Amino acid sequence: MEQNTVFQHETSVQIRFNDIDLMGHVNNATIQEYFDLGRMHYLRQIFGERLFINADTLIIASITTDFMVPVLLLDQVAVRTAVVHIGNKSLKMEQQIVDVANDTVKVICRSVMVGVNKDTGNATPIVQEWRDAIGQMEQRTF
Amino acid sequence: MEQNTVFQHETSVQIRFNDIDLMGHVNNATIQEYFDLGRMHYLRQIFGERLFINADTLIIASITTDFMVPVLLLDQVAVRTAVVHIGNKSLKMEQQIVDVANDTVKVICRSVMVGVNKDTGNATPIVQEWRDAIGQMEQRTF
Amino acid sequence: MEQNTVFQHETSVQIRFNDIDLMGHVNNATIQEYFDLGRMHYLRQIFGERLFINADTLIIASITTDFMVPVLLLDQVAVRTAVVHIGNKSLKMEQQIVDVANDTVKVICRSVMVGVNKDTGNATPIVQEWRDAIGQMEQRTF
Amino acid sequence: MEQNTVFQHETSVQIRFNDIDLMGHVNNATIQEYFDLGRMHYLRQIFGERLFINADTLIIASITTDFMVPVLLLDQVAVRTAVVHIGNKSLKMEQQIVDVANDTVKVICRSVMVGVNKDTGNATPIVQEWRDAIGQMEQRTF
Repeated sequence: MEQNTVFQHETSVQIRFNDIDLMGHVNNATIQEYFDLGRMHYLRQIFGERLFINADTLIIASITTDFMVPVLLLDQVAVRTAVVHIGNKSLKMEQQIVDVANDTVKVICRSVMVGVNKDTGNATPIVQEWRDAIGQMEQRTF
Repeated sequence: MEQNTVFQHETSVQIRFNDIDLMGHVNNATIQEYFDLGRMHYLRQIFGERLFINADTLIIASITTDFMVPVLLLDQVAVRTAVVHIGNKSLKMEQQIVDVANDTVKVICRSVMVGVNKDTGNATPIVQEWRDAIGQMEQRTF
Repeated sequence: MEQNTVFQHETSVQIRFNDIDLMGHVNNATIQEYFDLGRMHYLRQIFGERLFINADTLIIASITTDFMVPVLLLDQVAVRTAVVHIGNKSLKMEQQIVDVANDTVKVICRSVMVGVNKDTGNATPIVQEWRDAIGQMEQRTF
Repeated sequence: MEQNTVFQHETSVQIRFNDIDLMGHVNNATIQEYFDLGRMHYLRQIFGERLFINADTLIIASITTDFMVPVLLLDQVAVRTAVVHIGNKSLKMEQQIVDVANDTVKVICRSVMVGVNKDTGNATPIVQEWRDAIGQMEQRTF
């Protein structure tokens, strides 16, 4: 993750009892649900209802996750989300799960999402309207 | 993933109804449960009951997943697992989710697992006994 | 559960690592995934692809579950499913999660499913064709 | 559910993207995670850290759930929890999942929890200290 990533978006995570596995930590698969939660709230804040109605949507092509510190049942955590790059048909997202009690970054996730048309299944360009809307969230130009 | 990875271990995956999300695909977080399933069966085949009893265990430090083709509810899929490298205190694992009907690789996962002592929480070396046991599975020397 | 319920249908359950919660047992919510698995395989065996294509489908109206013996990570369990009654617009299903190593019944579930039209959301009668198909599975007449 | 149940405890539920299944509703197994969430917050508010440290704990013996109205991805829901009866070694809990936008009760759950000693696995009485603590929450005497 780039050292200079600034996060404009943060969502508190509500931890569930069965998020915890036999190791006593939030399971690594459940951690991905937390990042999904961040993605959904981030994109809904930008696109609102259109996110679910539009034929054009974003799907996840690739995820890289670094587990630095385990997340525990009684932790207060939040997921921070930023889009850091927008290409022709894809974008790069960076996310953190942070212990809000002490601002410790516990897990990092970098993902690539690609534009896809739900009806045809084909890749689709990230249109300028989307770039502008994401740029407004990120306070920069894409 | 290295082109020449040979997989000695494969586990069939039983897909559950609620593995599928609103997109009509197995959710990306659930895909990680499938890779966990492969890890567990792989390690249990090598270490048996000791896997859960030993103070020394392996935890996931990092995961990179590439989603190439969506997994669907009625697919017949299996997860293939191989250890491809063993360092001092960590090992590298490669995995695939394969549609067994047509041998299509749908998802790829590369992960780094580190040895850790459950009691102390400290990193612990991958001992020679483990290297030998994994090497026997992989038909090579670590 | 009626003492005389005979189960014609059984599905093996593949237990996943994160099915287990902090208590060391399969979590009660996950147990419902096992019963869903039984329902899906039962209904697919009867209705095949039509189960997912038809506008008329079955949804769960009510569930009663008795947890007698915890299910553990290394258990070999199966879910048994039977339809025991068909009313005008609903049916009653009985299910068991059984430890196949010793035929111990660990969890029991009785559920009511109602016919519903996916397009209108309205309740819909269980048609005679369905009664006959389920009756063939259960070796009785509905 | 008794008509006169008064709920002193309510927890907001954070809905996750993959809580939704192919039917477009929160899956019935996931609904149980919501009730678990209510249980955990209810019991933690009463017992605090002791809930997880004590050898004596409560496990779920039986659950009856009535699904009246589906829960959807964009709903704002909360889970309400009350203990309505305490016997010698067990207690009865009633819960609702409520759409807070219009105060609609969407799902109802009645459960029986039994006292159990984690070390021995034996049933254990609900001691007077617990009765008093729960009674204080419920503003009545058990």
